[in-house]
Amino acid sequence: MSKDNIDIQEKCINTIRFLSVDAIQKANSGHPGITMGCAPIAHLLYSKIMKHNPKNPKWINRDRFILSAGHGSMLLYSALHLSGYDVTMDDIKNFRQWGSKTPGHPEVGLTDGVETTTGPLGQGFANAIGMAVAQEFIAEKFNKLDMKVIDHNIYTIVSDGDMMEGISHEAASFAGHHKLGSLVFFYDNNKITIDGSTDITFTDDTQKRFESYGWHVQHVKDVNDLDKLEDAVKNAKSEKSKPSLIITDTHIGFGSPNKQDTPGVHGSPLGEEEIRLTKKNLNWDEEKTFYVPDEVKQYFSEAAAEGKRAEENWNNLFENYSIKYREDAEQLTKIFNAEFDDTWKENLPVFETSSSGIATRAVSGKAINAIAENLPTLIGGSADLDASNNTAIKSSVDFAHGSYEGRKINFGIREHAMGSILNGMALYGGVIPYGGTFLIFSDYMRPAIRLAALCELQTIYVFTHDSIGLGEDGPTHQPIEQLAALRAIPNLTVIRPADANETVAAWKYAVENKKGPTALALTRQKLPIFDRTKYASADGLAKGAYTIKETDGDPDFILIATGSEVYLAIEAAKKLEGEGIKTGVVSFPSWEIFEEQNEDYKEKVLPSNCKARMSVEAGVKQGWEKYIGEKGKSISIETFGASAPYEVLFEKYGLTVENIIEKAKEVLKNSN
Amino acid sequence: MSKDNIDIQEKCINTIRFLSVDAIQKANSGHPGITMGCAPIAHLLYSKIMKHNPKNPKWINRDRFILSAGHGSMLLYSALHLSGYDVTMDDIKNFRQWGSKTPGHPEVGLTDGVETTTGPLGQGFANAIGMAVAQEFIAEKFNKLDMKVIDHNIYTIVSDGDMMEGISHEAASFAGHHKLGSLVFFYDNNKITIDGSTDITFTDDTQKRFESYGWHVQHVKDVNDLDKLEDAVKNAKSEKSKPSLIITDTHIGFGSPNKQDTPGVHGSPLGEEEIRLTKKNLNWDEEKTFYVPDEVKQYFSEAAAEGKRAEENWNNLFENYSIKYREDAEQLTKIFNAEFDDTWKENLPVFETSSSGIATRAVSGKAINAIAENLPTLIGGSADLDASNNTAIKSSVDFAHGSYEGRKINFGIREHAMGSILNGMALYGGVIPYGGTFLIFSDYMRPAIRLAALCELQTIYVFTHDSIGLGEDGPTHQPIEQLAALRAIPNLTVIRPADANETVAAWKYAVENKKGPTALALTRQKLPIFDRTKYASADGLAKGAYTIKETDGDPDFILIATGSEVYLAIEAAKKLEGEGIKTGVVSFPSWEIFEEQNEDYKEKVLPSNCKARMSVEAGVKQGWEKYIGEKGKSISIETFGASAPYEVLFEKYGLTVENIIEKAKEVLKNSN
Repeated sequence: MSKDNIDIQEKCINTIRFLSVDAIQKANSGHPGITMGCAPIAHLLYSKIMKHNPKNPKWINRDRFILSAGHGSMLLYSALHLSGYDVTMDDIKNFRQWGSKTPGHPEVGLTDGVETTTGPLGQGFANAIGMAVAQEFIAEKFNKLDMKVIDHNIYTIVSDGDMMEGISHEAASFAGHHKLGSLVFFYDNNKITIDGSTDITFTDDTQKRFESYGWHVQHVKDVNDLDKLEDAVKNAKSEKSKPSLIITDTHIGFGSPNKQDTPGVHGSPLGEEEIRLTKKNLNWDEEKTFYVPDEVKQYFSEAAAEGKRAEENWNNLFENYSIKYREDAEQLTKIFNAEFDDTWKENLPVFETSSSGIATRAVSGKAINAIAENLPTLIGGSADLDASNNTAIKSSVDFAHGSYEGRKINFGIREHAMGSILNGMALYGGVIPYGGTFLIFSDYMRPAIRLAALCELQTIYVFTHDSIGLGEDGPTHQPIEQLAALRAIPNLTVIRPADANETVAAWKYAVENKKGPTALALTRQKLPIFDRTKYASADGLAKGAYTIKETDGDPDFILIATGSEVYLAIEAAKKLEGEGIKTGVVSFPSWEIFEEQNEDYKEKVLPSNCKARMSVEAGVKQGWEKYIGEKGKSISIETFGASAPYEVLFEKYGLTVENIIEKAKEVLKNSN
Repeated sequence: MSKDNIDIQEKCINTIRFLSVDAIQKANSGHPGITMGCAPIAHLLYSKIMKHNPKNPKWINRDRFILSAGHGSMLLYSALHLSGYDVTMDDIKNFRQWGSKTPGHPEVGLTDGVETTTGPLGQGFANAIGMAVAQEFIAEKFNKLDMKVIDHNIYTIVSDGDMMEGISHEAASFAGHHKLGSLVFFYDNNKITIDGSTDITFTDDTQKRFESYGWHVQHVKDVNDLDKLEDAVKNAKSEKSKPSLIITDTHIGFGSPNKQDTPGVHGSPLGEEEIRLTKKNLNWDEEKTFYVPDEVKQYFSEAAAEGKRAEENWNNLFENYSIKYREDAEQLTKIFNAEFDDTWKENLPVFETSSSGIATRAVSGKAINAIAENLPTLIGGSADLDASNNTAIKSSVDFAHGSYEGRKINFGIREHAMGSILNGMALYGGVIPYGGTFLIFSDYMRPAIRLAALCELQTIYVFTHDSIGLGEDGPTHQPIEQLAALRAIPNLTVIRPADANETVAAWKYAVENKKGPTALALTRQKLPIFDRTKYASADGLAKGAYTIKETDGDPDFILIATGSEVYLAIEAAKKLEGEGIKTGVVSFPSWEIFEEQNEDYKEKVLPSNCKARMSVEAGVKQGWEKYIGEKGKSISIETFGASAPYEVLFEKYGLTVENIIEKAKEVLKNSN
């Protein structure tokens, strides 16, 4: 590299460093350490390596960049600003302020060029892998021998924290197995965490670890050696059938005379004086803040022009593709706009009434296969419980190296990574991803579910074995508090259907719900299929709650139930009616959907003049108070479950017609 | 090995296999595959390797055995039965039935000889590592050069599922770093999971992976080769400064002519016919079920006698130890009985009133250090947020190889493993373990928290940064639904103290609460310290909720708040009083503790004749309906947070004195 070239590179890198440091200082909050240590990587990627057009951050064949170490957000914002994304200097100066585009951690949807929301460690790591799954799937579907319309890399910066989190194991093992070659990870190997040197608790041989997963691993011993760094990226890109890890030795807080290589620079502003000393140390004008030298602007504007050309070239390619492969081109465009034909709706199964019935997990499997037939973007699988969750698209092969067109993903016993991979797939776009496990193990993937909700991603969770109804496996496997815990997550829609036709309606809702994730809670055990000529239509599910069994005139008593308990409630209601107590039954599959209805509808379902109400659900009652009111009661489970055949458990835990009747009479007595 | 010896070994192994298979068949539910594949390991451990006395399953220097692959519970029950633990043949025949000692997955406390509750994969793996931490800590404290009173191994069988779960990475990395040499893990390498061959998604080089963590790894290519297996165990035991993994190649469903090496044998009974064929194949009497040959009984009774002698030898050692090191001996006995001097209570800090105040996380740090001074069994740390969580016992060195007496544990960025390691420590006994992270990351450790609650373990969680009050880090780091989600877990006590003195009271409660885990939710930001001469004593915390600010006579209005919102409620109440509205304020740090109080007390705090109530808490309102009633209202947060200074966030989210007053008036209007 020539001296001039070295000079401009260094200037660009220092611009990133000091924009970040200045913004953090102004906010008096943030994480300067990584921005100073990893600036060379961001610079190299954004100005030279990545194929991206800052003026069209949604170009479908762009290279993706994920800052898994989301606390380094200013590193990303600085790079986006310099590159010409819609991140202004005012935005930079508004770092971490109310209403700004530059929040504490990167948030997808809020800021152009931010591909995912990161911060909770390990999530970006696994999101990237999910993006690679979607990429390979779509590439396999749409690329032609003569025209590759999907052909890009996914770059990620991961930190010690990402490497320590368990999800990194799950996701890396998955990615290595599936040979996801578009992935290029930089490991910010700064040997410092918040509590001190990594020597105090983290001494893995990371190279060896990732080799054990089948990754291509390189080690760059000085992040500031741009030539070596670039060579490593080239090697990584040319390794098409392995994900790549570039272990990059960095210095946290690079350049700070008193704070470099110390934990103190991780999560606190440098301080005015230390900034001054650091600027001096790196030959930067000490008097200037938020300073972008003209030649740096020039350098990045040339890079932006190069990015624009790259997209133009692709646009030309795609134009030819559209001529030669018209249908594919149309479909590709549509799926990335989340537009699908509605034909999948015409094919939904309808179930005849049956007292022996069918488990809602089995219906879910049928629904998936019916929908999948006309919705080629539906793709998913299970965390090694495929036969139990009924998640397989039976007409499809497995998603695997050599058959990336497969729509059946074997996630392995990796619930957390599954959740985060689903998020990555949804973020990539073009697919509707779903994943299955037992409801109890929603706990294992909870951080990923929360992020799906926060990012408003369309992911679908198939949570089967949804109560003590799973029987003999016992309390470790029986969800008790999981429904309540999931309902607590903002923007997640939880649906617990009561029979086969509600289950189909639930799937219909989930596929149409593009504003956030949907969790389906499904039974292991068979449930009767209601006679919908006698009871209200299962379409009521689309309103969250509906009166499945009406009574004559105003009810004396309202039974509210979900899932497997609705049948018991109806049977109890019939007996109560026999005793002259006018009893309506509300099937209440989803709180969140019900809350979206207008007041008239809510009043119709839960008339305020009927205070004698009871909820029946095989889980904690937490939150049901809202619907049953002060005079109401809940039949619920407030302790852990037990190991026994499920019929025994339902009896022991009071989930019986007899107990409902008994408790109903208590409510009636107290509410008069 | 002589022919006779081979014969008897084989008989023992087949007895374990067929007891298990028969029990699973009778229950028509269970997992025969692992019991048949791993029977040689169980046999070798229980009859030869392990130092254990079936007549005293609580002997403190016993070897521990953990079946991390808890679905193989019958393997364990069979071994316990043969060894002479209190697991009768009737218990075996009652496998997976209501009220039996032999539930679907092993449950600690229910069955003698079961060291932990397993089933959720990866948990037993990490529990074992927690036990090793407690072991090393106690050994370092009590062993003398001339007398080792704690000197045993911890054996574990782990499965593909354990190996795939992320927690295995976190825990193995931690164990390798800390050189926990008492650990001997067998990896049931059967290459089959529920969904098929491990080839479909799991092709790690496990040997290499564990070497990268610093483990001692061996590979035994045939589990049925007992000599090799025993040699491997000897090698593992002699490697004192590395945890050991023995990769043991096994055959799932070993011996079954039609089902061996297939996923079908994992989780379903073999079926009568296949059992017959398998018995024939392994030279077992086809006509007999639940059969234990006399020579097998004899063999195991000799092993039991050996175990009894081992304990007697230790008792002799301990008698000498008690003479020479009387105080240590007394203390050792006491801590394993969970008996501690109450001196720690005398030393608790008391805080003077202050309007500038102090963050409750800071108080927690002071409380920890005050308690630790007189409670040498208190030991804990943080998941790399020590300075933020204030979890350090400052007088202590780090727990590390060479200083296992350290009471400050660097868990690393491994929340899930931390939770499960804390469980293992509590299960081991002799210590009160605690761990800290941000409240938001309780999601990462939720499966471990649930197991602590299920096992009724005394673990303490220091969850700081408990609301949008953490400010600039933004929505990824701001708990919104975490309090509700934690409160939903049965048997977990959640406490959110309102000021410094409540925080001390919360720690007091946590140390005294031996019937389950306690989670403390603590602020990042400073909170005023209430003048307890004007307001009720912080001792009220021990009742879960108390009227911190009384009003004159019956209240017109009751404000209910927790944590950082109590101060706002009091200020609002004062202004309301100024307007002639008699307003009481209830500080409500813990739902669970309040629910334990008698009805009189509850009525006193929340008099039923005052329906004008409002809750104020910086999180979802889910569940507060119970306390505010139909006429009540909640000031809560029902969406995700945002990145900004916390004062701005409190205002934007309506957590202000003004908004409380405004909403209070609405409630008063509606409830009249």
